[in-house]
Amino acid sequence: MANIPYKIYLNEEEMPKAWYNLRADMKNKPAPLLNPGTLKPMTAEELAPVFCEELVRQELDDQTPYFEIPQTIRDFYKMYRPSPLVRAYCLEKALDTPAKIYYKFEGNNTSGSHKLNSAIAQAYYAKEQGLKGVTTETGAGQWGTALSMACAYLGLDCKVYMVKCSYEQKPFRREVMRTYGANVTPSPSNTTEVGRKILAEHPGTTGSLGCAISEAVEVAVSSEGYRYVLGSVLNQVLLHQSIIGLEAKAALDKYGIKPDLIIGCAGGGSNLGGLIAPFMGEKLRGEADYRIIAVEPASCPSLTRGKFAYDFCDTGMITPMAKMYTLGSGFIPAANHAGGLRYHGMSSTLSQLYHDGYMEATSVKQTDVFAAAQQFARVEGILPAPESSHAIRVAIDEALKCRETGEEKTILFGLTGTGYFDMTAYQAYNDGTMENHIPTDEELAQGFASLPNIPAL
Amino acid sequence: MANIPYKIYLNEEEMPKAWYNLRADMKNKPAPLLNPGTLKPMTAEELAPVFCEELVRQELDDQTPYFEIPQTIRDFYKMYRPSPLVRAYCLEKALDTPAKIYYKFEGNNTSGSHKLNSAIAQAYYAKEQGLKGVTTETGAGQWGTALSMACAYLGLDCKVYMVKCSYEQKPFRREVMRTYGANVTPSPSNTTEVGRKILAEHPGTTGSLGCAISEAVEVAVSSEGYRYVLGSVLNQVLLHQSIIGLEAKAALDKYGIKPDLIIGCAGGGSNLGGLIAPFMGEKLRGEADYRIIAVEPASCPSLTRGKFAYDFCDTGMITPMAKMYTLGSGFIPAANHAGGLRYHGMSSTLSQLYHDGYMEATSVKQTDVFAAAQQFARVEGILPAPESSHAIRVAIDEALKCRETGEEKTILFGLTGTGYFDMTAYQAYNDGTMENHIPTDEELAQGFASLPNIPAL
Repeated sequence: MANIPYKIYLNEEEMPKAWYNLRADMKNKPAPLLNPGTLKPMTAEELAPVFCEELVRQELDDQTPYFEIPQTIRDFYKMYRPSPLVRAYCLEKALDTPAKIYYKFEGNNTSGSHKLNSAIAQAYYAKEQGLKGVTTETGAGQWGTALSMACAYLGLDCKVYMVKCSYEQKPFRREVMRTYGANVTPSPSNTTEVGRKILAEHPGTTGSLGCAISEAVEVAVSSEGYRYVLGSVLNQVLLHQSIIGLEAKAALDKYGIKPDLIIGCAGGGSNLGGLIAPFMGEKLRGEADYRIIAVEPASCPSLTRGKFAYDFCDTGMITPMAKMYTLGSGFIPAANHAGGLRYHGMSSTLSQLYHDGYMEATSVKQTDVFAAAQQFARVEGILPAPESSHAIRVAIDEALKCRETGEEKTILFGLTGTGYFDMTAYQAYNDGTMENHIPTDEELAQGFASLPNIPAL
Repeated sequence: MANIPYKIYLNEEEMPKAWYNLRADMKNKPAPLLNPGTLKPMTAEELAPVFCEELVRQELDDQTPYFEIPQTIRDFYKMYRPSPLVRAYCLEKALDTPAKIYYKFEGNNTSGSHKLNSAIAQAYYAKEQGLKGVTTETGAGQWGTALSMACAYLGLDCKVYMVKCSYEQKPFRREVMRTYGANVTPSPSNTTEVGRKILAEHPGTTGSLGCAISEAVEVAVSSEGYRYVLGSVLNQVLLHQSIIGLEAKAALDKYGIKPDLIIGCAGGGSNLGGLIAPFMGEKLRGEADYRIIAVEPASCPSLTRGKFAYDFCDTGMITPMAKMYTLGSGFIPAANHAGGLRYHGMSSTLSQLYHDGYMEATSVKQTDVFAAAQQFARVEGILPAPESSHAIRVAIDEALKCRETGEEKTILFGLTGTGYFDMTAYQAYNDGTMENHIPTDEELAQGFASLPNIPAL
């Protein structure tokens, strides 16, 4: 085997020219979105007031395996892609493991994460449709920043509802979004009906992604020339994020490397779904086998402790319903949980794959995640996002198992972003004041109580 | 000419294996450091209590053109280098200019700047000498972060004196340094004699790089097993930073590109000296000609309004004296100046080259700098550091001149880093509350009054 460099970059000509639609190769397709009024699958016409046309087409298409990436988006990708596939030589040495560890690093752009991959796609189709602007929610702020950047580039208006606890913990994120011209509102807010309702019912709430989605959707459907865009969960987002996995696979293939184990953090599923896409495709088609692990926070454990059921995608229960692993749209994760990945549900596609046994899931505690983050930062140089550090934790644990067994496994994990705007959480960890919160069965039961009562389909 | 990609990366094998020592090709060598007591050139023995041995050798050697980069440092470089040379297609389009703009982007690492290039070198030689740790100062925090990272990697103790106004404006920088295990103290502080003296004379001072240097040097020379390291100004730093220019030139050469104009921001000179090194070498040897422009802030204009004279490198007047363009070690830039580059002097090497007419210098106002930063961020995606934005300002201005004249000039500038920890300053710009401060002649005269009175040499 050739000498593997620290970082493998593709040339511009080697960059993917089409996104891969994982659903095309699934025998059991993800269940369709349902109209909560009729309990019938959502039609393109019903989705059109919320999403722009091309994105509706992408959302509903579970047959077409490849979608060509428009030239404008490919040009934008060239500003910050290809992202490097890094061989973690220093981490391997620090762990004294025979495992070979690779990570796909998506943090080398101003949004600080992989979110930009779908932001530019969604903004592009909105622009093509002649819209004025888009609305969205953001949690940790990565998605909001990404969308602000994409909108600035294309000249679109951008309204962001930011989960209040992030808005307060991350004031500088707001300024980055403002620098890119976005309008940022802490959620829940008094600017929407659903926001006012949530504030009345839960005064003092620090918000959740579910609340913020409700507000952003309300503004989109009630404003002329606006549509709503979402940074995770949706099929279209996984489609755009497949660029991560396609690049990673092309880079590995250049050196004849086949991973044994693929690890990604999972909140709504955007990164994990993108990273695993082409590998899972091979697995679905029976061409190769990979062990695939989704890592979620113990404080918001949708795959490992949730129910596989139809649920609303938002707290306000105004969106269509998706069949997914969910904690219930009424579940609000503990405020002391800093590591992103706060969403109550999980992408329908990933939920179905998990349900069908194509991947595993595990959950990790916040302090263990930050211990991994610190160890990784000190040896690999990159200060990781808390979200990404969930995957680091499990990658390190698996590499340490290899040290015990002597197995030379090849591990690939997704390093979704950097933690430069998460220093409040790092400070808590540095000061020893960070706490873990693992919801009790009673707390989960409260969330499950919010699940809609739907006759079996 | 081949189609130029958005980003040119060198392969690992193409990365420079030696640093280039610009002084070797200078006919008029930079004047030697002087012992302020004897007014004689500092000897290696006299420098040994402050700097470690190999770095003293590098500091004093103005004959050897190349220094081999040790393998450990080359391995560390591979974690975040080569840095990309970016063709600013989007900026060119936004400016509607026939100019071809390239920038060497040094911000893709956790320190957020080029400072890591010298930090790892200085930490490496301290480790090789068997020292326990190093002390330093930091202004904007980039150098302190870089040194913390290098020390964490090598297992060295790291004590950082951080200019108080940056310490307060950038609380998160402190946490990044702590995450990498460093000890961070706001300067001036009560932990040193010189700090106590400065506090007594200037109560309420927001500090300066010069003060912080005094404190760090005092701690280094009075602690067993410690040496002082400095992120700019010194010859050794310019030597290490030559990696920037060497990579940039190698990347341009691959495509047969020759810049007409090279632009870099200048505080102490670390970035500019590194970026221009191989180009200036050709110019000194008469092999090629380039127009080279140093850009400094109007609020701290050492080249454009300073004196070429021997001066102390620090406010406390405990360091050796260097012959340089200086505003006087007693000059303290306005507290509202956010853009880094706050140092009162300029690298002796660059000062000599400027004095001999090998390069130009210009100064720019803070609000004009942030206007350029915002414009750049929106079209090129990268949120630039305020320091780097000085170079962006002049690059944009030169590209706009090309639009007037129709000239297809090739412009290369140094994009030294990212502004993720400078959002307080961006917020002031976004809010319209940012002010400019241009020192009056009287204010400059006050600084000049602190210059030592030395008989002509």
